[in-house]
Amino acid sequence: MNADCLESSDSLRNCTLKPGLLKSRQDAVINHALPYHLLILNDQVHGTVKSGAMSNFRIAAGLVPGEFYGRPFQDSDVYKWLEAVSYSLVVRPDDQLKQQAISVVDLIAQAQQRDGYIYTPKTISKDKSARYSNLCDDHELYCAGHLIEACSSFYAATRYEKSLQIATKLANHLVTTFGAGENQIHGYPGHPEIELALIRLFRITGKTEYLRLTEFFLSERGASPNYFIKEAMARGEQEPYGPWHGKYDYSYNQSHIPFPHQHKAAGHAVRAIYLYRALTDFVSASHDAQLFAQAKDLWNDVVQTKMYITGGVGSSHHGESITASYDLPNESAYAETCASVALALWAQSMFNYDHNSEYIDVMERAIYNTVFASMSFDGTKYFYVNPLELHPNMIEGHRERHRLFANRQPWFASSCCPTNVARLLTQINQYLYYEDTEDIYVNHYTANTATLANGAFHIDVSTEYPLNGEIFIRIHAENVKKRVWLRIPAWCRNYCLKLNDQEINLERKNGYICLGDNWNTAQISLNLELIPTAYYAPLIPDCAGKVAYMVGPLVYCAEEYDNGAALQELILNDDVKLGETEQYSFGVFRPVTVSGIRIHGCQLYCRETSCSSTSVRLIPYYLWNYRGSGEMAVWLGKRV
Amino acid sequence: MNADCLESSDSLRNCTLKPGLLKSRQDAVINHALPYHLLILNDQVHGTVKSGAMSNFRIAAGLVPGEFYGRPFQDSDVYKWLEAVSYSLVVRPDDQLKQQAISVVDLIAQAQQRDGYIYTPKTISKDKSARYSNLCDDHELYCAGHLIEACSSFYAATRYEKSLQIATKLANHLVTTFGAGENQIHGYPGHPEIELALIRLFRITGKTEYLRLTEFFLSERGASPNYFIKEAMARGEQEPYGPWHGKYDYSYNQSHIPFPHQHKAAGHAVRAIYLYRALTDFVSASHDAQLFAQAKDLWNDVVQTKMYITGGVGSSHHGESITASYDLPNESAYAETCASVALALWAQSMFNYDHNSEYIDVMERAIYNTVFASMSFDGTKYFYVNPLELHPNMIEGHRERHRLFANRQPWFASSCCPTNVARLLTQINQYLYYEDTEDIYVNHYTANTATLANGAFHIDVSTEYPLNGEIFIRIHAENVKKRVWLRIPAWCRNYCLKLNDQEINLERKNGYICLGDNWNTAQISLNLELIPTAYYAPLIPDCAGKVAYMVGPLVYCAEEYDNGAALQELILNDDVKLGETEQYSFGVFRPVTVSGIRIHGCQLYCRETSCSSTSVRLIPYYLWNYRGSGEMAVWLGKRV
Repeated sequence: MNADCLESSDSLRNCTLKPGLLKSRQDAVINHALPYHLLILNDQVHGTVKSGAMSNFRIAAGLVPGEFYGRPFQDSDVYKWLEAVSYSLVVRPDDQLKQQAISVVDLIAQAQQRDGYIYTPKTISKDKSARYSNLCDDHELYCAGHLIEACSSFYAATRYEKSLQIATKLANHLVTTFGAGENQIHGYPGHPEIELALIRLFRITGKTEYLRLTEFFLSERGASPNYFIKEAMARGEQEPYGPWHGKYDYSYNQSHIPFPHQHKAAGHAVRAIYLYRALTDFVSASHDAQLFAQAKDLWNDVVQTKMYITGGVGSSHHGESITASYDLPNESAYAETCASVALALWAQSMFNYDHNSEYIDVMERAIYNTVFASMSFDGTKYFYVNPLELHPNMIEGHRERHRLFANRQPWFASSCCPTNVARLLTQINQYLYYEDTEDIYVNHYTANTATLANGAFHIDVSTEYPLNGEIFIRIHAENVKKRVWLRIPAWCRNYCLKLNDQEINLERKNGYICLGDNWNTAQISLNLELIPTAYYAPLIPDCAGKVAYMVGPLVYCAEEYDNGAALQELILNDDVKLGETEQYSFGVFRPVTVSGIRIHGCQLYCRETSCSSTSVRLIPYYLWNYRGSGEMAVWLGKRV
Repeated sequence: MNADCLESSDSLRNCTLKPGLLKSRQDAVINHALPYHLLILNDQVHGTVKSGAMSNFRIAAGLVPGEFYGRPFQDSDVYKWLEAVSYSLVVRPDDQLKQQAISVVDLIAQAQQRDGYIYTPKTISKDKSARYSNLCDDHELYCAGHLIEACSSFYAATRYEKSLQIATKLANHLVTTFGAGENQIHGYPGHPEIELALIRLFRITGKTEYLRLTEFFLSERGASPNYFIKEAMARGEQEPYGPWHGKYDYSYNQSHIPFPHQHKAAGHAVRAIYLYRALTDFVSASHDAQLFAQAKDLWNDVVQTKMYITGGVGSSHHGESITASYDLPNESAYAETCASVALALWAQSMFNYDHNSEYIDVMERAIYNTVFASMSFDGTKYFYVNPLELHPNMIEGHRERHRLFANRQPWFASSCCPTNVARLLTQINQYLYYEDTEDIYVNHYTANTATLANGAFHIDVSTEYPLNGEIFIRIHAENVKKRVWLRIPAWCRNYCLKLNDQEINLERKNGYICLGDNWNTAQISLNLELIPTAYYAPLIPDCAGKVAYMVGPLVYCAEEYDNGAALQELILNDDVKLGETEQYSFGVFRPVTVSGIRIHGCQLYCRETSCSSTSVRLIPYYLWNYRGSGEMAVWLGKRV
């Protein structure tokens, strides 16, 4: 077992957030979302969509009678809650929460079958022959992946042995059941997730058979003849059921061509990105440069052609899908919250193999915009779909947009997103720094303290980032021999760096400044110039001719509340101003104001328009929809 | 029986088109589309989607064994073909075609049941109890309407008695079966059409019971409790099956509220407009001013807030639906061909009651843009969906857009549109003029000769309209005492009118110039200033900040073929030029050129863009997609 193979919760434990935006979002999860989710999962919140998730486990465990309730992936809501709780217990120990989580782990153990199998829909139905008969649509392996992530994390957080046993028992069952062997199932999951979970378990246990099963799943996916057709025919059906007209589209689950030949992102966005992250994790575990080239192609295809400026991914409601390059419509965007959670974690995985700040830029973009926007400031309301433009009165006519709401919702019938946000934001501490034997990378700027280099390197960061770009870093160490790399985000053109009050001028390399390799007590002052910056996207049909503003990592938007309705009538000039900090119940921010004009037309199609000058007020995208339901737009008309 | 109640084919017979755009489109239908459709309907064209429509009648007639094939409205394809043939036989007699049509009428008669019922899906299934058990989804009454229109038209064209007998036998059966009586069905069709067909039959036969049944259908629609729920429950189902997630949306078939209370257009666009036309036809037949107010409200709602500049209607693929006011997205437009055919006919119906040229403006807009665009110049290929912007490589990812193709298609599985275009363009002659006891309205300008006023008023029009706006009218009459009204289209600001070489200056009234009321031989010269005109639509989110050009009634568009890919990068200036006539295999037109710039960006989101000046070439929208598959856009960036 090498160092790479031993996952612990140390990197999470050794970093503590101090007050600031990131901590406020994490606190919302720990203080409000996690207890709220537990109530929801136990069907103890009235007036919201029923979950049934915990009840399914009780029924599967034989504790109470009943029928399975919910979606085929309902189990995973419990697992993702448990995973979030695991991280939460590390960053802020809480005995009561720990006991609640232990009860959940114990319940999961009771619902697990003797051979390791666990999936409440089928355990409740008692039809053993139905196991793994529909890998395409059933979410057995997807849920198995989330179970392994959750139980591994809980073990890492608490050393509660039973938790790891559940995970390994299931993983061992899968290793026996799936593979190239004569008596094994040669299939792979319709929804990836197990692949990356098995790598996590390999890192904890060192058992290479888990890594090999991931390798099997990755290499088998999309092999001809398509496994999902074979299993459908074995069930007496022609092909899988798909949510579209006509023939099944196998790109939906990335099985349209053999996965090793896939270099363009396609299909259901969350499935796609989970899969690409699994590939990337596998690259790190196996050090296969050729596979990294595939991961990099997929990465470039996504972030250079298929990603919203907010870090959203998925352009079509139908199939929740990635579509063609540059097809990034604002109002009909899907941009599922889970896809941005996945993108952030994939970005970290890419960075782990290839230390370049471009990945952290994307991670920051996804977290500070889509992920933050998706959860209300108090952690109890959520967006599933994250459009970049909204006319609330225009949702209803588009009946396919059934997960698009004009306001954050308390829960969803298909509620994958809330717990996904929770597990991302509770584990975020471990991504502020990246450390290996020779290097320390400072990746995210937020107020925090951390201990690195096996306790020899103490770092204390004070900053109001992203309200402004001033970052003060105090290092306390004694002859620690590691290079320290400070990330300079791609959005930052000018910065001022001082080491012990001496301004220094060093070359950016892969988006970092390397400050030296022998550390004692030191003070660093980094000032990232943080100004409203106009972005253009002429390659995107729906954004061409328009402008979007960012301030540092934050995308801004206009809301009807500030600017009146019919935001599309606004045409912005170039003079832009960043305002002073304003404080509201839902958050703290600095508004941006831009002068512009409003074009008026007297009828649907008119030969003349009139215009009036106006001042347009923009707020951070992640703070939209706190002042009533109304129009919102990230991309606005631009005077040429 | 008053004059209003006697429909004849005289108005069609008495107007002959001379060479010009309108005649070229009608010729394409008569020369190519009608024989081609007959082959398709008989499954004699290989390599296209199977129709099965004629075969269904043979099976239903007991001539051959077999199963029903196709959609629930497959019968209507045959009826609409027959209706188009009927008009065609009037405007250009053709014995062979007449004999083919008589065979079809005879076949229909054989498939008709003794009691008058005819609907091949159910006749073939032999399950008599299933009749009218699902008015919501089955298309019995819709097909009945098209049968009545077709057989009435064929009778009017040929006086073939059997044809009228089929229609009246079916209508009499319906009058017995549906209504408020104790033993009658209190329902109404999911897809309107029968309502307007019964009014046609009333006009031919004078039988008021047909008018009364239309009145019943109109007044009953949407009454509470909803009939479609009642019939679903009678079938043992909870509610009708709908093509969307969650609850059934009753606005889809305009039954969400009682129809008499509907003043805003909603739901499936074709259903909506057929219904609104039926209401308007009913107004003309019943002279009910209050009902006209409802029709006018619906009209205003559609044309002032829900109509594409091309005369397309229907903003959402899902449910083929009208959506909210000003929600008119260009690329994801549905704008089904049938909806524009319906709009043109509704416009005529509105005009029939309220003689205002605004209706003819809309009719012209729908025909000269969407309808013309939908059928290839040779009449054998079709668009079902008519977007105003297309990036062909971006279709595939949007799997809900299954009827959107980047190129015209030879036929569709659900092929309502081709025959609908055929029946509109073959009957168009009768709409060039509108005549009543005191007035003659000249509504459409195209080269033609016509005889009005019971043969006493001869009119001969020479023009190349819409290539230019010069229209020469020769009238040959002797003391005909009717006012003659010349339409001045709303798009025309300046015009020059000469009567017998004397320039005259008369006030426009309701979009017309009234030239006098006592006619002998006369010459009129009307010159409509026809220049490229910029239109703006700041109320439409997807069009704000953009410009569309029209020349007379023709909407123009940019194509990739002329302007390169990434049309969204173009920003137009104001200097525009109308070119000389150009002739191609697919049509004759005058291009429009506008100077502009092209904005270039080096990556997805960029802080700097570069620009180069360019000249943008526009062609009429109806001529798009004749030079290979490529991008197209009606609305283009506009320099402010």
